[in-house]
Amino acid sequence: MKIKGFSTSAVAAGIRYADRLDLGLIVSDTPVVTAGAFTTNQVKAAPVVLDMERLQQGKAQAILVNSGCANACTGEAGMQAAMATSQCVAQALGIADSLVQVSSTGVIGEQLNVEAIQKAMPQLVAGLSPDHFELVAKAIMTTDTIPKTAYRTVLIAGKEIRFMGMAKGAGMIMPNMATMLAFVLTDAKIHFPQLHESLIRGVSSTFNRITIDGDTSTNDMILVMANGTAENTLIDENETNDQQLFEMTLTDLLRDLALQIVADGEGATKCITIRVCGARTVLEGEQIARTVANSNLVKTAFFGEDANWGRIIAAMGRSGILFSPERVNISFGEVLIVHNGLGQGKEAETAATAVLKEKNIVVTIDLKDGAATVEVYTCDFSLDYVKINADYRS
Amino acid sequence: MKIKGFSTSAVAAGIRYADRLDLGLIVSDTPVVTAGAFTTNQVKAAPVVLDMERLQQGKAQAILVNSGCANACTGEAGMQAAMATSQCVAQALGIADSLVQVSSTGVIGEQLNVEAIQKAMPQLVAGLSPDHFELVAKAIMTTDTIPKTAYRTVLIAGKEIRFMGMAKGAGMIMPNMATMLAFVLTDAKIHFPQLHESLIRGVSSTFNRITIDGDTSTNDMILVMANGTAENTLIDENETNDQQLFEMTLTDLLRDLALQIVADGEGATKCITIRVCGARTVLEGEQIARTVANSNLVKTAFFGEDANWGRIIAAMGRSGILFSPERVNISFGEVLIVHNGLGQGKEAETAATAVLKEKNIVVTIDLKDGAATVEVYTCDFSLDYVKINADYRS
Repeated sequence: MKIKGFSTSAVAAGIRYADRLDLGLIVSDTPVVTAGAFTTNQVKAAPVVLDMERLQQGKAQAILVNSGCANACTGEAGMQAAMATSQCVAQALGIADSLVQVSSTGVIGEQLNVEAIQKAMPQLVAGLSPDHFELVAKAIMTTDTIPKTAYRTVLIAGKEIRFMGMAKGAGMIMPNMATMLAFVLTDAKIHFPQLHESLIRGVSSTFNRITIDGDTSTNDMILVMANGTAENTLIDENETNDQQLFEMTLTDLLRDLALQIVADGEGATKCITIRVCGARTVLEGEQIARTVANSNLVKTAFFGEDANWGRIIAAMGRSGILFSPERVNISFGEVLIVHNGLGQGKEAETAATAVLKEKNIVVTIDLKDGAATVEVYTCDFSLDYVKINADYRS
Repeated sequence: MKIKGFSTSAVAAGIRYADRLDLGLIVSDTPVVTAGAFTTNQVKAAPVVLDMERLQQGKAQAILVNSGCANACTGEAGMQAAMATSQCVAQALGIADSLVQVSSTGVIGEQLNVEAIQKAMPQLVAGLSPDHFELVAKAIMTTDTIPKTAYRTVLIAGKEIRFMGMAKGAGMIMPNMATMLAFVLTDAKIHFPQLHESLIRGVSSTFNRITIDGDTSTNDMILVMANGTAENTLIDENETNDQQLFEMTLTDLLRDLALQIVADGEGATKCITIRVCGARTVLEGEQIARTVANSNLVKTAFFGEDANWGRIIAAMGRSGILFSPERVNISFGEVLIVHNGLGQGKEAETAATAVLKEKNIVVTIDLKDGAATVEVYTCDFSLDYVKINADYRS
């Protein structure tokens, strides 16, 4: 897919390794409406701080993204480096510095190699083309084993609106980081408040519902640029139906990218959906689902294909949310393994164990306390997770 | 060590495995002051529910403990089983049911083998002796690799007070459980309110400050019996100095047992103390220390002997406690690796890596925000942790 008005480019700049795509550029022909969502970690990398400040104007024209260095915990020098690289892009494109967003992933605590980026800039800009979106998706990879992209179209009032998204997941060939980055381009014509609102709502039920290991990076960010070249009726506060269609499609694309991240989680062999239903509120259901999804005991049991429902109910019990253990049902796939808090015996366990042999597993926990349903997405916890995160420097 | 008035016994009852010590009994000659602390998990095993209710009277005479089955998530039948086994002890000893505490560790969701316990009771009671404390410590082991006991004495107003403690740690040859059990006997003469208060305060800075994997069991409990045979002046609300001495010694013994549990954590190769100083309050410091101590990324880095301070500061940043990253110092042992939020370069990292080769590692995080200091104790996260928790049934 291409979207009129956007071009992309990626090069091997040698930021940490030689001959490896590590620098990407996304450019719009003109300044366009841009919304972002950023890490909630109070330790924020320099590019995150810079981007959040600049995005208060609600528009941008270029995104520069590098792998190999997170530019996090780098102090004043790190902020200078982020500004210097954005300035380098601005000069090469002849636009204002403040229209450039910067994004980094890689080692924490090391200074960014600004010189390598400056040196690569002419080649990077020369390579700009409508066709290099997949190349940029490769340039942002760290321990990701595959590039992650997703595409969608939707008809809004007779106009076809396009979406192109890319993401990188929780991987670290480098120490210290499990960064999630995502960039989405669309040709929708939409006001900033509506774009921002749809992004935040979309992220809350997709990217904010995945967990690999419970750690939150200093560099997480997602940016959406909307350039309006679809020539649809402007989506503003009066076009709520149009916004709904836009948001549904955006959310669908975000979920696609989020699930690609889970499937490619460090060492992951299985994708697991923890679905809590019958919760009093979405927040309470989410808290229970998240506690189960982050439990090492639950995740290692899935790796071992062991229908260990006791670990699930024990994790629920420490979630801080009140429920009645004696009313809880738990199913693995279609197999009811716990009914009203009691195990359903060897036969159910054998059937549940068969479900665990699959690659995609849905665990449904029914609290019978209310009407709210929430899903959290995670992966299993394998020997390779420990290997990846213990051995990389040795 | 022996304490006059207490006797102990352990047998292989065949609760789950044959020819393996799995049933222990601790008996006092008379009903004695007994205090307990129990799991905060809202899913509580049957023995926990029964004990909490019975301990409202502040005294007990016997503790029956089994491994091999947690008697958790077993519904009404599980509660009947807990009562039946306590009744069996009561009849054999000729005491009231309500004076018997019961304690279980092992598989969640399976019913307790009451018959095996009833059958073993005559032999168990016949074996009661002042000398079998270490045998009981063996009978409560699951994946613990060594029995854990600790002994202390203290002079209070000229009388020698003795303490004998045992614990089991976070292991599971069985599915689903990482149960901490501990039992302490003392000959101190002390009123229940003072014993309870000293136990709760002692636990809060010892057992409640260790973490293996962030999961909380449905069966955790600690019981302290004080039989008064030391003939010291009764420790009551008037003897605050005596209580302080008593509490210091009890706490020291509890810390000893707690650190033995960490050292024998599943797959652990290193003991790690996360010390947060300069916190505004103990609660805030504890929250930061606990988040760092539970981070899989931090724990795998320790296993890999990798001085990954970025993972520590990233975990601190998601702890929910406000601090100033640009003021933080981090030391590994005596090596300052982060000063005012910035890494101290290759030389410091090399020195820190040498510290990580040791078995006991202290990480000090100075927030420079206040005067509170807190320590949380944990272990590293190894390949064996995943193996133990994924493979046990295959």
